[in-house]
Amino acid sequence: MGLNQTKDTPLYIGIDGGGSKCRATIYAADNRILGSGVAGRANPLHGLSQTFESIQQSTALALTDAGLALSDSHQLIAGLGLAGVNVPHLYQQVVNWQHPFAQMYVTTDLHAACIGAHNGGDGAVIITGTGSCGYAHVGEQSCCLGGHGFMLGDKGSGAWLGLKAAEQVLLHLDGFAPATALTERLLTHFKVHDAMGIVAHLAGQSSSCYATLARTVLTCANDNDEVAKSIVVEGAAYLSQLAHKLFELNPPRFSMIGGLAEPLAPWLDSDVVANIAPVIAPPEFGAAYYARQQVAVQSITR
Amino acid sequence: MGLNQTKDTPLYIGIDGGGSKCRATIYAADNRILGSGVAGRANPLHGLSQTFESIQQSTALALTDAGLALSDSHQLIAGLGLAGVNVPHLYQQVVNWQHPFAQMYVTTDLHAACIGAHNGGDGAVIITGTGSCGYAHVGEQSCCLGGHGFMLGDKGSGAWLGLKAAEQVLLHLDGFAPATALTERLLTHFKVHDAMGIVAHLAGQSSSCYATLARTVLTCANDNDEVAKSIVVEGAAYLSQLAHKLFELNPPRFSMIGGLAEPLAPWLDSDVVANIAPVIAPPEFGAAYYARQQVAVQSITR
Repeated sequence: MGLNQTKDTPLYIGIDGGGSKCRATIYAADNRILGSGVAGRANPLHGLSQTFESIQQSTALALTDAGLALSDSHQLIAGLGLAGVNVPHLYQQVVNWQHPFAQMYVTTDLHAACIGAHNGGDGAVIITGTGSCGYAHVGEQSCCLGGHGFMLGDKGSGAWLGLKAAEQVLLHLDGFAPATALTERLLTHFKVHDAMGIVAHLAGQSSSCYATLARTVLTCANDNDEVAKSIVVEGAAYLSQLAHKLFELNPPRFSMIGGLAEPLAPWLDSDVVANIAPVIAPPEFGAAYYARQQVAVQSITR
Repeated sequence: MGLNQTKDTPLYIGIDGGGSKCRATIYAADNRILGSGVAGRANPLHGLSQTFESIQQSTALALTDAGLALSDSHQLIAGLGLAGVNVPHLYQQVVNWQHPFAQMYVTTDLHAACIGAHNGGDGAVIITGTGSCGYAHVGEQSCCLGGHGFMLGDKGSGAWLGLKAAEQVLLHLDGFAPATALTERLLTHFKVHDAMGIVAHLAGQSSSCYATLARTVLTCANDNDEVAKSIVVEGAAYLSQLAHKLFELNPPRFSMIGGLAEPLAPWLDSDVVANIAPVIAPPEFGAAYYARQQVAVQSITR
């Protein structure tokens, strides 16, 4: 389809940017998906230029997928749900970006994910993929918990599971911690023979590199490895705490999002699991929905 | 002095490169210090080009301090004690460097520190500054423990103390961990009002930024703050474990090196503290000593 048909009904693009990838989806006025694209990481905390590059790249791919020209980006109304923009100066720098869109509205990745999960309604979400965090929006109240990024927080996330596993394996190889099946797994994973080899592969690497170890940690925990189990138990206990804090706002719906939501579910408190409702739409939809809300608010206040 | 006087007695430069700084000292044949210079971080694990830059910068400063010309670097025999070169490919890349010296010999920062601490004799050292690690050299045996770098290991180091404090403060501000005096201290340290402010100052920062919090953690621990105390106790317990492992090699001398060695001493096991001997010479001296040893070995094997 060409843009000519949509002169009066603008197209929206919803963009979900995080620590490992950036996904963009173009929606018609009736919410039909016209095209989507995925590019690399887009977390302003880890670099603004990379964030802008990933947004442009995923947008270009989505435009191509929709059969549109790259120059048509200037006619899209964009909603961006980005990690890190809860930090005021990063939010400001993103907003000041000379973006390629007709209009651009920026919110956090959490807010966009929550809007998407509950199709615009009130609710709470916990995201546990590369990072972890919790968010709830109920009436006038909203609450954002955790999500302080790799190293500083993000307990129970993929990167955290990987980091804790690497720490324990290195302590074990030095003789300071008990034996664990994780040691053999990590040596095999990196095709190395000693601690030095593991360090060479992990030092200075990003959270997504650590997150590649998460499945291994979960497998070892499910196979009853004590060290892996204690890591997973500690991470899951934090996520359960996070859920209980969010429940204090009485959200009408609660969803778990992210690649580790499903494999971690058996390790969460049973009342948390019992409350999990399926995600209705993805974060990109939430980001586009947010843009549409903002356009509506502006047309009213004008 | 000019280099003319030393045509037959070569000058040595000892270089100690680590996570926060790079120190270079030029020695005459009789071990007299002719000049020294300090530049920024030189840890190959965190970037080779920065490492080479810091080495050149500290060398230039040392030459100037000694009243020598910059071009005189081509007549210096250099000993480099560098973090990270226990990783084979990094060692190879440093050795392959088109360096500005007459000859260059490379070993680990730990080995150089140990040689310096015991004036070339056998012994063991624990370094705890920005990072932490242990090393012993006794007869034909040597043993290197810990020191896997910020995040992955380095328990009991300044960066580790700072990281653990930040984690606890963020958990406390989210309501997931007990109150601690560290919260007020960190908010004041960064001149911010909430978790977001702390994250904005720490996210993506290097180990040396985290290490600036170490003194605060020790102060709070000494003031009986339970959270700070449990962090310091965990770090010190690891360092005591490290010492006991090194003692298994029966080193004739043992020293503690680095900015946190003294403030952490009261928290270490009493038998570890009882064994601490003073450092005889700094790591730069050890690096220069190593170069001299290698030159001697080569003149014998030729």
